[in-house]
Amino acid sequence: MTAPAPRMRWWGWGEDGHDAPLSAGAQTLLAQQIGPLPQRRRDPVALEDVRLPAAALPATARERLVAAVGAEHVRDDHLTRVTHAAGRGYHDLVRLRAGTLDAAPDAVVYPADAEQVAAVLRACAEDGVAVVPWGGGTSVVGGVAPLRGTHAAVVALELARMDRLVAVDPVSLTATVQPGIVGPALEEALAAHALTLGHFPQSFEFATVGGWVATRSAGQASTGYGRIDGLVLGLRVATPSGEVVVRPVPASAAGPSLRELLVGSEGTLGVIVEVTLRVRARPTVRRYEAFSLPAFGVGADAFRALVQDGDAPDVMRLSDPQETRVSLTLAGDGLATRALTTYLRARGHADGCLAIFGWAGSSEAALRRRRAAAARTLRAHGAVALGTPVGQAWEHGRFHAPYLRDELLAHGVLVETLETATTWDRLLELHDAVAAALEHALRERGTPPLVWCHVSHVYRAGASLYFTFVARQQEGTELEQWHAAKAAASDAIVAHGGTITHHHAVGRDHAPWLPGEVGPLGVELLRAAKATLDPAGIMNPGKLVDPAGPGARAG
Amino acid sequence: MTAPAPRMRWWGWGEDGHDAPLSAGAQTLLAQQIGPLPQRRRDPVALEDVRLPAAALPATARERLVAAVGAEHVRDDHLTRVTHAAGRGYHDLVRLRAGTLDAAPDAVVYPADAEQVAAVLRACAEDGVAVVPWGGGTSVVGGVAPLRGTHAAVVALELARMDRLVAVDPVSLTATVQPGIVGPALEEALAAHALTLGHFPQSFEFATVGGWVATRSAGQASTGYGRIDGLVLGLRVATPSGEVVVRPVPASAAGPSLRELLVGSEGTLGVIVEVTLRVRARPTVRRYEAFSLPAFGVGADAFRALVQDGDAPDVMRLSDPQETRVSLTLAGDGLATRALTTYLRARGHADGCLAIFGWAGSSEAALRRRRAAAARTLRAHGAVALGTPVGQAWEHGRFHAPYLRDELLAHGVLVETLETATTWDRLLELHDAVAAALEHALRERGTPPLVWCHVSHVYRAGASLYFTFVARQQEGTELEQWHAAKAAASDAIVAHGGTITHHHAVGRDHAPWLPGEVGPLGVELLRAAKATLDPAGIMNPGKLVDPAGPGARAG
Repeated sequence: MTAPAPRMRWWGWGEDGHDAPLSAGAQTLLAQQIGPLPQRRRDPVALEDVRLPAAALPATARERLVAAVGAEHVRDDHLTRVTHAAGRGYHDLVRLRAGTLDAAPDAVVYPADAEQVAAVLRACAEDGVAVVPWGGGTSVVGGVAPLRGTHAAVVALELARMDRLVAVDPVSLTATVQPGIVGPALEEALAAHALTLGHFPQSFEFATVGGWVATRSAGQASTGYGRIDGLVLGLRVATPSGEVVVRPVPASAAGPSLRELLVGSEGTLGVIVEVTLRVRARPTVRRYEAFSLPAFGVGADAFRALVQDGDAPDVMRLSDPQETRVSLTLAGDGLATRALTTYLRARGHADGCLAIFGWAGSSEAALRRRRAAAARTLRAHGAVALGTPVGQAWEHGRFHAPYLRDELLAHGVLVETLETATTWDRLLELHDAVAAALEHALRERGTPPLVWCHVSHVYRAGASLYFTFVARQQEGTELEQWHAAKAAASDAIVAHGGTITHHHAVGRDHAPWLPGEVGPLGVELLRAAKATLDPAGIMNPGKLVDPAGPGARAG
Repeated sequence: MTAPAPRMRWWGWGEDGHDAPLSAGAQTLLAQQIGPLPQRRRDPVALEDVRLPAAALPATARERLVAAVGAEHVRDDHLTRVTHAAGRGYHDLVRLRAGTLDAAPDAVVYPADAEQVAAVLRACAEDGVAVVPWGGGTSVVGGVAPLRGTHAAVVALELARMDRLVAVDPVSLTATVQPGIVGPALEEALAAHALTLGHFPQSFEFATVGGWVATRSAGQASTGYGRIDGLVLGLRVATPSGEVVVRPVPASAAGPSLRELLVGSEGTLGVIVEVTLRVRARPTVRRYEAFSLPAFGVGADAFRALVQDGDAPDVMRLSDPQETRVSLTLAGDGLATRALTTYLRARGHADGCLAIFGWAGSSEAALRRRRAAAARTLRAHGAVALGTPVGQAWEHGRFHAPYLRDELLAHGVLVETLETATTWDRLLELHDAVAAALEHALRERGTPPLVWCHVSHVYRAGASLYFTFVARQQEGTELEQWHAAKAAASDAIVAHGGTITHHHAVGRDHAPWLPGEVGPLGVELLRAAKATLDPAGIMNPGKLVDPAGPGARAG
């Protein structure tokens, strides 16, 4: 078996054939809100024009890696290095499209099993080669940036060959999987047993289970099915110091939870080589439906009531007024959209908030009961039912947004998302503070943004906020512009009681704000764990808590 | 304010006035099953006859502690030392009743707030004094044993003065509390806000929130309300290296969970000085009800179906046939019990298993719906409804078992409990293996036991097993006898895929089996955390993972 082909096109999200041109309405909206866009499309350079530093893997290290995984599974051709040189954050896409990558892995290794992963880590620890564990490469926070830290070289450890469903226990409802399996393959394999994991992040089609677990991923149905951290029962992690095994028991009081120390470790402690997940009976009926809430605060109250009363749908998403306007505009220029807008205005929802709900279950009757209970709460909060077509339209396009991002980039638009979570009592304050920080930071640079937001993960104690913002790109200083906005938003998040990340993880981009969240002793605890499992500091340098400190050399 | 009085009688569980003599039926059952008991009661010695090592707190250390908390809050009188010299495990009770304590804290300090806790820890770290954090002192696994490790002295850090409800957020449904508040006081304070935590371990009346969090406690309603680890949103922990603060956010992807490293740390990393908990609307209606299941395996299947289908009652408890027989015998010798037994035999439940269910909610209608859904599943598994009186009788006596233990000890009976959890596919295998190990170990010593068990915490992936065993005490070698049984059961648990503890914690008693559960690297991770927060190793030596190793001197 040769090394698998890259899953995504090298310069952007996903596969070709999914892009759609910006509608006239969207172009008008953008021009009105953020100013005129460049006439000329900014398309990516050709693959052969992407400049990379020369591969610099020492010969001895290369020999050991070949001994560990076989010559055909140590690759350093141009395409392989380019496709493992960046994740899929805005800053990644800007650099990929421009062909100006200042770092790339010196090689990409493709182990076949846990033993080969262990052999690779041993070789790299002895030879001082940094290792970036690689799942789907979909990180939007610099989590897979090929940083070498203080080491001579860096390799990407590709898990694409470790992509099997290992075992299913239909009695305990668990599934044991290898880390490199992607969402659709996992769901297909589980479907053969009438099971589902129910984890559908926007990256579902390309991200891997190992990546989800390493980053504490949350999916669109996580209000119903739970976050990935709640779905992990046991796991095995290969580290430079050996393998750590967390037994798959349903609950334990045997001291601090090592599972929770490994989940979310973002490749900085080791490589997840196997995960035992809680799965569920596969639903046979589903329903998606849209409502309009009269205002964001009222909508948040309704969402809170739903989850605190035990009537939460599996999917819950509440757009703020700005996101609602953008969604209706992007939905098209047709009569239907205009009729809907007129109808909502007549119902007093001129600043209405679009809410999407999804239910999944094993019987129509059960779904009807749950839907009726939720609808009662929604009506009590002044909601107007918009029916199932709008809900189905959302469901149909729910993995599409990253393609739209590529299209916006071609139009010279800065487009970025960021997310946080806090308790209900601070949710609106946090929403307004982050939006204001983004507004201010980008307006100050002469590129006023359009900022919108939704609530998409709901807990009894609070909820997430997911922001999207667009602005005209500052050509030549795209990354400085982005960083100014990102820093302003992150500062606002920390100042207003949010977590620096609810489901995107820390990676490189959020690392400067982690000490503010966990405190100096929290940082020391994370460093102590790293020193134990990765004494040479080879695992994913520069991410999460970088033991080499801010002076570490970028790869 | 002077130091609070001890909550429990010094030699046993709880307060006087709750003991009841063993019924004639129980005495007959015991004589039949485990052999004749001694004629003479074995009552505890008088308090003044309890022998303790002399208090040996160095004068400089004492001065610093007095400076930290005030002279009246550093105590070393006989009663205070005796009441902080042992928890409430079987081995504790044996030594307390005999008055043969080989260790006691050299002093007990009563800080008033987090600042005083920090000052106490600083003083002890500098002077090399070990610290045992003390909540309710209800540990049954040696978790509060006054071990000094390699240090010159040991103090108990009593949290009884830090017992306030600090704040309630009725919007986010959170409550922030000090660690020393006990169950009834917490529920009473929350009731004023129409809220409940819903955490009812058997130690509810005397244990503290800090103790629950430090030991990953589970309560009788945890199937419905969740374990304490699931109820902790944020916390503050004072450590010798400073304070660690975990922000109360509903969910986060900001790296490994430090919350889960501190929850369950059993006082070995620091002292929990504040906890923010998820609370719920206080239920206004409750229902307890009993059923009989035809056999343990069928009962487990029914319990699994209930939780996997989403119809689990809040309280779920399934006795094995032996526990069912014991329960019916203890319930009394009356006609009602005999009639019930006859009825069950007629229904084919001669080896039936008693099941107790509890529901709590805000409306009779909602409770009826949940009860009906559960009853359908139970009937499909051949269950026979026994009505609410049996359920209410369980609810009425649910905190009483530890008093019965004191009474059995007076009759010369070894009585101990232990617990574990595993996935559903291994539950019966584990049940049988642990019961057989206990049988074998005690029979071999000439004291054949009676062993019974129940399932009391139910998860989608598995369940807990809670064993009780009784045997004739071997006078003079009570602790060796106990240890032989405990070791045999623990070996069986590890060999058959269970966790060494589902909710009693590790303490001193389970520490030898922890490496088997978490592996050598897991142990290293726990030691690294301890070295970071407690470099002098003063926090609760000899528990969980003892960095001083097995050679450490017992206090």
